[in-house]
Amino acid sequence: MADIKTTFGKAVRRLRTDRGHSQEDFAAKAKINRSYMGRIERGAVNISLDNVQKIAKALGLTAGQLMTAVDDEAERR
Amino acid sequence: MADIKTTFGKAVRRLRTDRGHSQEDFAAKAKINRSYMGRIERGAVNISLDNVQKIAKALGLTAGQLMTAVDDEAERR
Repeated sequence: MADIKTTFGKAVRRLRTDRGHSQEDFAAKAKINRSYMGRIERGAVNISLDNVQKIAKALGLTAGQLMTAVDDEAERR
Repeated sequence: MADIKTTFGKAVRRLRTDRGHSQEDFAAKAKINRSYMGRIERGAVNISLDNVQKIAKALGLTAGQLMTAVDDEAERR
């Protein structure tokens, strides 16, 4: 099974940079601590559903749309 | 913001029963403790990405497909 933490982090980084947000600005927008956001993007944390939803919202996506992007990220490997 | 824990639990219960699995059999299939699965379905826990993936896999879905079903569940309200 692919490591979903790593894939999630890569997808979030890709979607964030596509939107032109710095990690700092994005963390503020998502109301997530900046260093925690760095750890999320590095695949270092097994985040909870609440945080998945906060990140999706900050990207202008639903949780389903965000996780579909994570599925797609897994296929890039 | 809708409570994603509650919506997630309802979607999992719906998808599980659609497939004819008892909660006990489904928990075993997903390799999740049965009482924890009960709490997930009741929306009582903020589960992690790893567990989202385990549940998706036990349902024969990707994490994106499962979370899209959660989006749809939210729209049923």
